[in-house]
Amino acid sequence: MLSKEENERITHVGPGTPMGEALRRYWLPALLADELPEPDCPPVRVRMLGEDLVAFRDTEGRVGLLAAHCPHRGASLFFGRNEECGLRCVYHGWKFDVAGRCLDMPNEPPESSFKDRVRQTAYPCVEAGEMIWTYMGPPAQQPPVVDLEWMRAPRGHLNVSKTYEQCNYLQALEGGVDTAHSAYLHRFFGGARANRTTERFRVNAGAPKLEVHTTDYGFSYAGLRTLPDDGGQYVRVYQFIMPAHQMRAYEGYCGRPMIQGHVWVPIDDEQTWVYNWAYVADGSALLPEEIEKEMTETGRAAADMLDGRFYPARNRANDYQLDRQAQRTLTYTGIQGVNTQDMAIQESMGAIFDRTREHLGTSDVAVIAMRHLLLDATHAVEAGREPLGVHGSADRVRPAETVLPAGAAWPEAMQADLLARW
Amino acid sequence: MLSKEENERITHVGPGTPMGEALRRYWLPALLADELPEPDCPPVRVRMLGEDLVAFRDTEGRVGLLAAHCPHRGASLFFGRNEECGLRCVYHGWKFDVAGRCLDMPNEPPESSFKDRVRQTAYPCVEAGEMIWTYMGPPAQQPPVVDLEWMRAPRGHLNVSKTYEQCNYLQALEGGVDTAHSAYLHRFFGGARANRTTERFRVNAGAPKLEVHTTDYGFSYAGLRTLPDDGGQYVRVYQFIMPAHQMRAYEGYCGRPMIQGHVWVPIDDEQTWVYNWAYVADGSALLPEEIEKEMTETGRAAADMLDGRFYPARNRANDYQLDRQAQRTLTYTGIQGVNTQDMAIQESMGAIFDRTREHLGTSDVAVIAMRHLLLDATHAVEAGREPLGVHGSADRVRPAETVLPAGAAWPEAMQADLLARW
Amino acid sequence: MLSKEENERITHVGPGTPMGEALRRYWLPALLADELPEPDCPPVRVRMLGEDLVAFRDTEGRVGLLAAHCPHRGASLFFGRNEECGLRCVYHGWKFDVAGRCLDMPNEPPESSFKDRVRQTAYPCVEAGEMIWTYMGPPAQQPPVVDLEWMRAPRGHLNVSKTYEQCNYLQALEGGVDTAHSAYLHRFFGGARANRTTERFRVNAGAPKLEVHTTDYGFSYAGLRTLPDDGGQYVRVYQFIMPAHQMRAYEGYCGRPMIQGHVWVPIDDEQTWVYNWAYVADGSALLPEEIEKEMTETGRAAADMLDGRFYPARNRANDYQLDRQAQRTLTYTGIQGVNTQDMAIQESMGAIFDRTREHLGTSDVAVIAMRHLLLDATHAVEAGREPLGVHGSADRVRPAETVLPAGAAWPEAMQADLLARW
Repeated sequence: MLSKEENERITHVGPGTPMGEALRRYWLPALLADELPEPDCPPVRVRMLGEDLVAFRDTEGRVGLLAAHCPHRGASLFFGRNEECGLRCVYHGWKFDVAGRCLDMPNEPPESSFKDRVRQTAYPCVEAGEMIWTYMGPPAQQPPVVDLEWMRAPRGHLNVSKTYEQCNYLQALEGGVDTAHSAYLHRFFGGARANRTTERFRVNAGAPKLEVHTTDYGFSYAGLRTLPDDGGQYVRVYQFIMPAHQMRAYEGYCGRPMIQGHVWVPIDDEQTWVYNWAYVADGSALLPEEIEKEMTETGRAAADMLDGRFYPARNRANDYQLDRQAQRTLTYTGIQGVNTQDMAIQESMGAIFDRTREHLGTSDVAVIAMRHLLLDATHAVEAGREPLGVHGSADRVRPAETVLPAGAAWPEAMQADLLARW
Repeated sequence: MLSKEENERITHVGPGTPMGEALRRYWLPALLADELPEPDCPPVRVRMLGEDLVAFRDTEGRVGLLAAHCPHRGASLFFGRNEECGLRCVYHGWKFDVAGRCLDMPNEPPESSFKDRVRQTAYPCVEAGEMIWTYMGPPAQQPPVVDLEWMRAPRGHLNVSKTYEQCNYLQALEGGVDTAHSAYLHRFFGGARANRTTERFRVNAGAPKLEVHTTDYGFSYAGLRTLPDDGGQYVRVYQFIMPAHQMRAYEGYCGRPMIQGHVWVPIDDEQTWVYNWAYVADGSALLPEEIEKEMTETGRAAADMLDGRFYPARNRANDYQLDRQAQRTLTYTGIQGVNTQDMAIQESMGAIFDRTREHLGTSDVAVIAMRHLLLDATHAVEAGREPLGVHGSADRVRPAETVLPAGAAWPEAMQADLLARW
Repeated sequence: MLSKEENERITHVGPGTPMGEALRRYWLPALLADELPEPDCPPVRVRMLGEDLVAFRDTEGRVGLLAAHCPHRGASLFFGRNEECGLRCVYHGWKFDVAGRCLDMPNEPPESSFKDRVRQTAYPCVEAGEMIWTYMGPPAQQPPVVDLEWMRAPRGHLNVSKTYEQCNYLQALEGGVDTAHSAYLHRFFGGARANRTTERFRVNAGAPKLEVHTTDYGFSYAGLRTLPDDGGQYVRVYQFIMPAHQMRAYEGYCGRPMIQGHVWVPIDDEQTWVYNWAYVADGSALLPEEIEKEMTETGRAAADMLDGRFYPARNRANDYQLDRQAQRTLTYTGIQGVNTQDMAIQESMGAIFDRTREHLGTSDVAVIAMRHLLLDATHAVEAGREPLGVHGSADRVRPAETVLPAGAAWPEAMQADLLARW
């Protein structure tokens, strides 16, 4: 349970809010790299942490992320012309480069120095892991760019996507560090998924025991499930990387273990972008069949989306196309798509869930730990200190899952499994 | 006219508001019985007095009405599985019975007593008159269940329905205790309705004289209309039963006098469910033709509804399909459906009408009396007293209409007509 | 830049706000005359300065503009019956004339004097220039009706229309007194428009020099553009007439100089009606071809509208059907319709633009002057004085454009051109 004050502190993300300021101290995905497919392509709207921005790729291929409203009289630069290394406002022709410098101001006399005194808000961007990352915090505190194993996978080895979710980011993130729900929310009564070994482990084991180990980047936590017939202990270790990034191991769709994860980026207090990524754990390239199965099973295939990409066709307005007959016979929820199930239940908590009304149990210890780290980060930033993880060692870890003898200590037994391989 | 403060007091219905607390002292319809047609059928969303609830019928046929959000982490129980005498949240499998007890908590260790310490908000429900009634007030003050003549009619003798209205309940209720408007808003220039005897009485008589007699359940009020050519006085007596229930006599659609009524239940401050009921005054069963004519003439037939049941196809978004040519030649409003006419005009007053701007006349005395009773009820509850009608004798009355000699006193002359017959 | 307080003062228009009270001191268009095509035609909803009104034309052809809600119990008079020199509320039959007098109150006894004591808010209306104008201010301060050259044009000599815009009026008005943007926002890379002489002047000249001359009705301002090869100076003189009226000269669509203008009328703080008018400068009748070309080029033809008249099909919800390929090759914006381009960019500033964030330059001097006059008007009205222009001489002026020798003083050189001709 959080107090009303804590709940507001942890969920509000706009400029000047405690969590908004803390989130601005990390590099976060702003869009997928292929949303800006080539130099001088059309600019793209980005809304992030409650700010309206416009992203563009200039003639040299550099990515700019500017405040949306022209500093002159506020016209949106989304309508701008992307041309000759700058984005030009169509109202009066003011032109800005990726750093926010005004390159041209044709409605002012040529001798005017006005354009040197105008600077548009611009956030630095880098491309990595097929995404464009940005840093929206104070320039003096700009940390090194995030660099994780999945981001270092060669092109073609990675499957990335992005999904719209209509609620506060924290509800989504809480679902992400909550291994217990998979046995219920995602249960299938038959079919390929139900027959995977680790799915059976999770569904049959009953309540998992959770262990959280705090690190310099967030925490690792393990869901420990005792297998029947002295079969030992099924251990699934997740990585939580500050401020809103989850990594987990998965048995895979074609018999090859995979590593998957999400980054949850607040659009504003009541909307979230979910960035999804996956790769094969041994470093080999993904097969088309693996990508297709992942997208279909999670509910993120083109056919699942209103726009073919980002906006789920099964959404709040249609109760996620809940099928009560399917709920009786095929899946626990009657909702298609594993990530659509997550989204449905997270959105059902309301735009911003009131955590004064919750009742947390032993299976929620990772959720609790994650909230503590986030709240600590807000206090650190308010006190002028650096929040956790900004210089952490997340680049050296990965998640893993395995079966250990009953009673074995997972951190020691899985030490090698939990190290990044490249 | 109400003051701004009185208007807020009487129109706001959420938890903790004066009127919200007063309304919670009465049994109110929560849904139609057939919305939960059989044991273990899909749960149904209910929003009532500003609270989000979920109704379900368990394996034994009992009806539960639970707060919508799971006490664990707030997922909506609407998405739940209705199985084996309980509604199970699909997020982590917590299961609740109709009384709100937690029967299962599979994500906690078997030895945990946590589930005994968690209790979901649950409101008691009873079925009567083909509706499911609930009491949302303090358990210690729970009154006897409402029991009216129409609710005691045998199955098949009653026609019930439910209609969505997009404004505050009080505007709807005021229309319900306002006999004067029927001669204008509901006037037809021809056809079956225009030719009914009592319709002609109302249309031709001019301004009615109103008399209100307060009772222990609300009030009876009569609209007195002098008929031409020394034809005596047409008297129509309505019953208003606290807090939001109206009963009136009607000539009927097939020559058999009927009794009809509405209960208006606030969804929240700006939306209302209208529950409609009707039966034949002499206690005989309704003919299919009578039901069909009632539904068509009132505008509540399946074809009049977007969803075939509850949401009018003629609504605010399309100006109720107002036909100006029909308004000149067929009906006073040009809007089809007598109750759609009511809804149109009530919604046209705005989401919550500002009663500081009204000008009430002599035909509004029942409206004024009704507001006094409602405001009195809020003061009674605030003072720790029981509001009017909770233990009233409404079970013994019915409405009636007749023609009396000029000058006859209706309460005496109609005494027998106004008594319930079963 | 405006302070936060000034920005609120100048943009909020509801009853009792400083700008709302100032605007109420002027005659403003309420609707087009042909929206009420004949006596006893259907009433029309009008929302204006944040007030909900209903306009009707009575049996004698007089126009009434009444507060929308019946003074009795608040039903909307939009649903009323327009009959026998009055608009009758369909709820209880109360009937009002164009002056707001209650003519009939059939639900009250015939001897009642109640109807003489009820008066509905009614604003005086006049028809001129194919529009219906109203005055919503204090009766004692009612000024003479606006009377401008275009309004005196014979029927058939004028083309008028009305367009919905989804933002605060001031953003629209600022675009209207901003000659500098036409060279960017409205630039065509080919076609008829690009080849017109004055279009080429504007596009090729670079930054214009602006001069503002304040008058007793607002101001005249000139955009001065030096033509190449000692071609002299292209001077375009606009008239700004308080509080929200612009006039400009245009080369015309068929080689005949025209005069065009707009009046921007706030619907409320976040919506605006744009009234458009045009006529041939020499006083001859418009050709059908001129009207058709004007409507098509501005984006106001029937085919450009969702409803064939007022609501643009290219609107915020579809990014104004922005075509990025057309933006590269055909027009500066890729948006069809010159006035749709204005609307797009004005709406893109947000519902109410935050002017604390703007950076004004030398090309914005007319915008700055206009804001000063509007803010001055609010202070005048607060101080009990008459705001500028209420008794001004705008009836005697027109806008003009010409080429003058370099260095010539335009007010003297163009004196005759700037006088109304009829």
